[in-house]
Amino acid sequence: MSPAPPLVVVDARVDGRPTNVRCRDGVIDAMGPEVVVAAGDEVVDARGMALVTGLVNAHTHAAMTLLRSFGDDLHLMPWLEERVWPAEARLTADDVYWATRLAALEMIRGGTVHFVDMYWHAEAVGRAAADAGLRTTASQVLIDGGPGNPGADTGALLATAEASLEELGRLGPLVVASLGPHAVYTVSPRSLEALGELADRTGAPVHIHLSETEGENTASVAATGARPTALLERHGLLGPRTVVAHGCWLDDDELALLAERGTTVATNPVSNMKLAAGTFPWTRARAAGTSVAIGTDGTASNNALDLLGDLKVLALVHKGGSGDPTVLPAEEAWATALAASSPLLGGDRLTPGAPADLLLIDTERPEMVPGPLLENLVYAANGSVVDTTVVAGRVLMEGRTVAGEAEVIAEVRSRAERIRGGA
Amino acid sequence: MSPAPPLVVVDARVDGRPTNVRCRDGVIDAMGPEVVVAAGDEVVDARGMALVTGLVNAHTHAAMTLLRSFGDDLHLMPWLEERVWPAEARLTADDVYWATRLAALEMIRGGTVHFVDMYWHAEAVGRAAADAGLRTTASQVLIDGGPGNPGADTGALLATAEASLEELGRLGPLVVASLGPHAVYTVSPRSLEALGELADRTGAPVHIHLSETEGENTASVAATGARPTALLERHGLLGPRTVVAHGCWLDDDELALLAERGTTVATNPVSNMKLAAGTFPWTRARAAGTSVAIGTDGTASNNALDLLGDLKVLALVHKGGSGDPTVLPAEEAWATALAASSPLLGGDRLTPGAPADLLLIDTERPEMVPGPLLENLVYAANGSVVDTTVVAGRVLMEGRTVAGEAEVIAEVRSRAERIRGGA
Repeated sequence: MSPAPPLVVVDARVDGRPTNVRCRDGVIDAMGPEVVVAAGDEVVDARGMALVTGLVNAHTHAAMTLLRSFGDDLHLMPWLEERVWPAEARLTADDVYWATRLAALEMIRGGTVHFVDMYWHAEAVGRAAADAGLRTTASQVLIDGGPGNPGADTGALLATAEASLEELGRLGPLVVASLGPHAVYTVSPRSLEALGELADRTGAPVHIHLSETEGENTASVAATGARPTALLERHGLLGPRTVVAHGCWLDDDELALLAERGTTVATNPVSNMKLAAGTFPWTRARAAGTSVAIGTDGTASNNALDLLGDLKVLALVHKGGSGDPTVLPAEEAWATALAASSPLLGGDRLTPGAPADLLLIDTERPEMVPGPLLENLVYAANGSVVDTTVVAGRVLMEGRTVAGEAEVIAEVRSRAERIRGGA
Repeated sequence: MSPAPPLVVVDARVDGRPTNVRCRDGVIDAMGPEVVVAAGDEVVDARGMALVTGLVNAHTHAAMTLLRSFGDDLHLMPWLEERVWPAEARLTADDVYWATRLAALEMIRGGTVHFVDMYWHAEAVGRAAADAGLRTTASQVLIDGGPGNPGADTGALLATAEASLEELGRLGPLVVASLGPHAVYTVSPRSLEALGELADRTGAPVHIHLSETEGENTASVAATGARPTALLERHGLLGPRTVVAHGCWLDDDELALLAERGTTVATNPVSNMKLAAGTFPWTRARAAGTSVAIGTDGTASNNALDLLGDLKVLALVHKGGSGDPTVLPAEEAWATALAASSPLLGGDRLTPGAPADLLLIDTERPEMVPGPLLENLVYAANGSVVDTTVVAGRVLMEGRTVAGEAEVIAEVRSRAERIRGGA
């Protein structure tokens, strides 16, 4: 993509006050009533809209849009064995590219500006994100059979990992190349150790599933004598550049260790409920000081990529589950959607110098009337209240229109029948 | 409103096949490829869209849009005592009218065609629904202090009830006049008995809160020696024309009794989680054969009126809560949104002779691609996938545009500040 021209967002409401925002070279250049439009600027008229920072989807498999609503209402293993894995075996890099373009479309429409991904053909994921203008921290799935596979070829796995870092690293500033060991039950201890060294040497972020189900913990202890989190610690895979997904079955000591290491947990409330995997220990994680962000997981187990919808579910499940309606108030939910506590993914993002990743919210929608913006975003809104999405200073959607939508949808439709075996 | 002209929906997909639907005098007149457009017909072009029947919101307080996101994240009693009740004391009939118009706007946009309501100034609720073109089963809240008030004036309560039936009864075919005793803890046994007789005599439906919290059951036993459901049975208030809201704390015998009486339970998963009131016993209710429909409850405890969003939460909470992902599959969720099992609210609704309450679903939205319609509606969609809403053969929304939106929003904004005390 060519560089974006300077962009000025005019008359957006920030904390209730009309504000102009100048974006240049992908960052916020200036904010305030004194910012004016100059010749050559691209201008977005934000009258009647509220400006907020963009959302972070901390765990997904974007290309699973091809498997959306494909095998719902099944137990985990039949779902994987009879539906997901046979379909995934048919995926080409081009399939992954277009399926990720569809996911990007959905995420842009819902206000997501950055997604943390793990999938096959990761280079195609990164390329699709970059072409769509979206940020991704992308990783190739790495699997070698886990602790039960004595013949695991760590050399081959490491070569795949290094090649994917190199390929993803060529895709420009929107793509962060990351390592994606699938989980401790699918990657051998020797390979985990090698990946820990690779992460240490390269500084690449690590993205791994962790303690999603109770069975994962039990099996890990049976196979290795250690719980999954202890294995990651042992192999040097915990740190401020690691995202662990799910964590439904983390105990207090593990939550404290993750807090100490600055590791981010991506909780996926919708996927966890849909697959009945378990419930993330929100109150215990807060007490331990663990950094928690929110992910959608893939659309085969969600089945949407609407972070605002999932954010409401996050607040609801922890209020309902704890029996305490004061748990996870709107402000805390909102901070979670920005990954505000994550050393890797978060940060203060509505100030000069910060990435120009911005949303304009249509506050004239019936469900946003009347009431305070923040509470309405968490409890009343879904992604359709986002009018405009800006990533790195580039307007990806305005007035709910994204360029090239129909082409992406047609491409995915034509590929879906083959992948899904006619189902 | 003047009578709607005959309407022909052209080229809608029904079970995957292109179908034309003729509506006349509020009902479906004919369906099939042979239906043609005649002079004077209104025509809706449904190419690329799927036709389904409209959704039923089985429990709400529509006018609480004025209290949307007003006092979130509080315990039940401070929320009611410090926020809701003082604000409600300030409501005029005009406030209720406009707040219900806003709710109607939101419901039309989300595909709801019929809402079961209980609120103050019920005549204004019914009038707003009729003016918006939406069906309602509406009731005036009836309260006289409950079993702890020996001075309860049953005569006055009955006069209010009869007057509201008469007022609501004048509002035309879209409004069903109903009785709204608030709950067994706010209406005295003598008044419940009188209302049971009135319902029997008039055939008016009954709408009451039932066993929403565990405390309601305990208090009922302490005050009367009987659980809430037993009181309703004793006073003749259970039957096929009764809707009981919530029912989180119903036991198996009570679920069986409700099934025997043909009473509909309106479950409100979002409100119940947000207020941490409890979880409806879905699996036990299914085993007992109880009719269950879904409601949003009011926007003070939801905070939206998006039934498709809530339907996903319904499926999720019962999968997650039971630990079984096969519980409440998509087809069962969809039937619940249509109130299909309810003698009062449901019925076979996509055949000639049935009410012309129809939705066109935009299946070209990214979140609806690819995949089966039903599963996508339950798990991937929210209300924004509804393109067109038809109630009683009248087009209330087409292309996501509802006539008069801006006026309704402006009216509610101007009233909200006074009602909310500047908050």
